[in-house]
Amino acid sequence: MITALAGGVGAARFLRGLIDVVPPADVTAVVNTGDDIVLHGLHISPDLDTVTYTLADAIDRERGWGLGGETWQAMESLERYKGNTWFRLGDRDLATHLYRTQRLGDGQTLTAVTAEIAQAWGLGLRILPMSDDRVETRVVVEGEGEIGFQEYFVGRQHGVPVSEVRFAGVDTANPGPGVLDALADADVVVICPSNPIVSIGPVIAVGGVRDAVVARREQAIAVSPIIAGRALKGPADRMLTELGHEASVVGVARLYAPLVATLVIDEEDADRVDAVEAEGLRCVVAQTIMHGPAEAATLAKVVLAAARRD
Amino acid sequence: MITALAGGVGAARFLRGLIDVVPPADVTAVVNTGDDIVLHGLHISPDLDTVTYTLADAIDRERGWGLGGETWQAMESLERYKGNTWFRLGDRDLATHLYRTQRLGDGQTLTAVTAEIAQAWGLGLRILPMSDDRVETRVVVEGEGEIGFQEYFVGRQHGVPVSEVRFAGVDTANPGPGVLDALADADVVVICPSNPIVSIGPVIAVGGVRDAVVARREQAIAVSPIIAGRALKGPADRMLTELGHEASVVGVARLYAPLVATLVIDEEDADRVDAVEAEGLRCVVAQTIMHGPAEAATLAKVVLAAARRD
Repeated sequence: MITALAGGVGAARFLRGLIDVVPPADVTAVVNTGDDIVLHGLHISPDLDTVTYTLADAIDRERGWGLGGETWQAMESLERYKGNTWFRLGDRDLATHLYRTQRLGDGQTLTAVTAEIAQAWGLGLRILPMSDDRVETRVVVEGEGEIGFQEYFVGRQHGVPVSEVRFAGVDTANPGPGVLDALADADVVVICPSNPIVSIGPVIAVGGVRDAVVARREQAIAVSPIIAGRALKGPADRMLTELGHEASVVGVARLYAPLVATLVIDEEDADRVDAVEAEGLRCVVAQTIMHGPAEAATLAKVVLAAARRD
Repeated sequence: MITALAGGVGAARFLRGLIDVVPPADVTAVVNTGDDIVLHGLHISPDLDTVTYTLADAIDRERGWGLGGETWQAMESLERYKGNTWFRLGDRDLATHLYRTQRLGDGQTLTAVTAEIAQAWGLGLRILPMSDDRVETRVVVEGEGEIGFQEYFVGRQHGVPVSEVRFAGVDTANPGPGVLDALADADVVVICPSNPIVSIGPVIAVGGVRDAVVARREQAIAVSPIIAGRALKGPADRMLTELGHEASVVGVARLYAPLVATLVIDEEDADRVDAVEAEGLRCVVAQTIMHGPAEAATLAKVVLAAARRD
C-alpha cells in the first residue's frame, strides 16, 4: 500500500506514473484542498481536479490544467456581464464543479464526492481530500496585504513577492476520513514533487497529519520539486526564498528531514548529495523531470525501490 | 408609463412587441420569480432570462427558451457524473447563472443583478423581479405529492395532473423595490398572456401587489393566454381545469375581473364576447397569436389603445 501526499501538476504526473507500476487499488493520494475556491457559487478544487484529470489522461497537457479539447463558451459569455473570468473554467470542466457543488449542497462530504468523481473517470486509486473541512490558503503579498491563494496564483500569475502564508481554518480542520489510516497502514509514504509551502504545507498542517507522517518517517520518501534551484512550474523556488528558506534541494531537505528518511533529487543536483545527507536524510539521485507517463513510471519505480531500500 | 406583469414565453413575446411601439424606457416588466430554482448551487431565474433573452433577440425561437446558437458541453460532460441534466443549461446560458449567483453571493439583490444583466444586453426597459425574497411555486401532483415547479414543468414535462399550487414563502415576501410604485405610477397596467395560475399567480400573491393592481383596475388590461380553450404553450389550460376553473376566455375573465377592466381575447373566441363581458369587464377582440415581433407589435398597439379607450 502506498500513500502519497499530493498537490497539483507535479504530483499528478508522478501519480500517473505510479499507477503504471503498482496496482492502482494499492495507491491512496491525499490531496491538498487549501487552494479550493468558491467562484460563481461553485466549489472548485483545482488540485483534486488536476490529479483526477491527469490520471484519467484527460488533462490538457499543454496548459497543465483543465481538460483537453475544452471549449470556452461560458467564460466568453461571462465577459458580457464583466463577470469574474480571471479564473478560467472550461465548459466541460464546469460539469465537474456543477456536480461537486450540487452534491455538497445535498449534504455529501467532499471525500464522498471526490470518490464519485474519480469513479466516474474510471480511476482505480483512492483520492482523498486532505480534509472535509474548509482550509483556505492565504498569502500576504507586497503592496496588497492578504489575498486568497488563487488570486495570487492565477489572478497575479504568482508574480508578486509573498511575505507570509497561512492556512485559514486549519486549526479546527480534521483530516478527511481515511487519511490518518492511509498513512498508518502504508508500506511507503511518498511526498510528491509539489510546492512544499502551499501544496504539501496545507496537507501536513491539518491536525494529526504531520504527526502521522513523522511516525512513518523510515518508510517515507519525498521527491524534490526543486531542480538546480528552480521549480519546474509555479512559484515554489521564489516562495521558498521569500519566506526565508533556501531554494535548493538542501532547502527542501531541511524542510522535509523531520518527515521523511529519504529525499530523491534530480541528476542535475548530483553534486549536492553530501549537503542533503548532512541534513539527516538519505539522498537518492534520479531523473525526476516527467515529460510523460513513461518517465513518470520510471521515477515511480526508483522512488518505491529507494523507499523500500531494495 | 406602462407596467406589465409577466411570466415567461408569452409575456416575453408581448413585451418584445411593446418596446417596438413605445419607448423602452417607458416600460416596466414585473416578472415572476416563483419558478426560480437553485441547481448545482446556481441561482436560475427562468422567466427573467426568457424575458431578457427574448427582448435582446437572443432567445432560441425554436425551443422557446435559452439562447440561440447554444452549445451543450457542460451538460454532456455532466452526464459522466450522472449529474442533474434534466434541467438543460447551455454553455452560454450558464454564464448568466454564474454571474447572477456570484453577484447574489456578493450581497447584491436580485433586483440589482437583474438590472445589470438587462443593461449588459443593451435593454432599455426596466425588468423587475416580483420580489427579492425567495418565493417558491410548489405543485401537488397525482401520485407524487408536492414537488417544485421546475420538477413538474421540466422534469415531468407538465404531463401530470396538478391538484394544488402554493407559493412557499409568499407570506413573508415583500415586493421588489420599485414594483408597487411602478403599478401606482403607470398609465396602463398590462397582465401579459401568461399562465394565470403559476406565472401571474405568484406575482399578485406577493404582499401588496394584488391590491396595487386592483387600485388601477380602470387602467388595467389583460391578454388572455387561453385561445379556443387551449394554451398555446404549457399547461395553463389543463391546470385551470384541474384546479376547478374553466379553461376558456370566460374562465380567464372570471379570474381577472377583480384586477382589470378590460380583457383582450383572440379572434377565435369572438363568439364569447358577451360571456366575457357578463363577468364584469370590457372585452376586446384581436389577433393575439404572436409568431414574431411584427405581430407582437400589432397586438401591443391594440392593447394600449384598448386600455386607453382610444
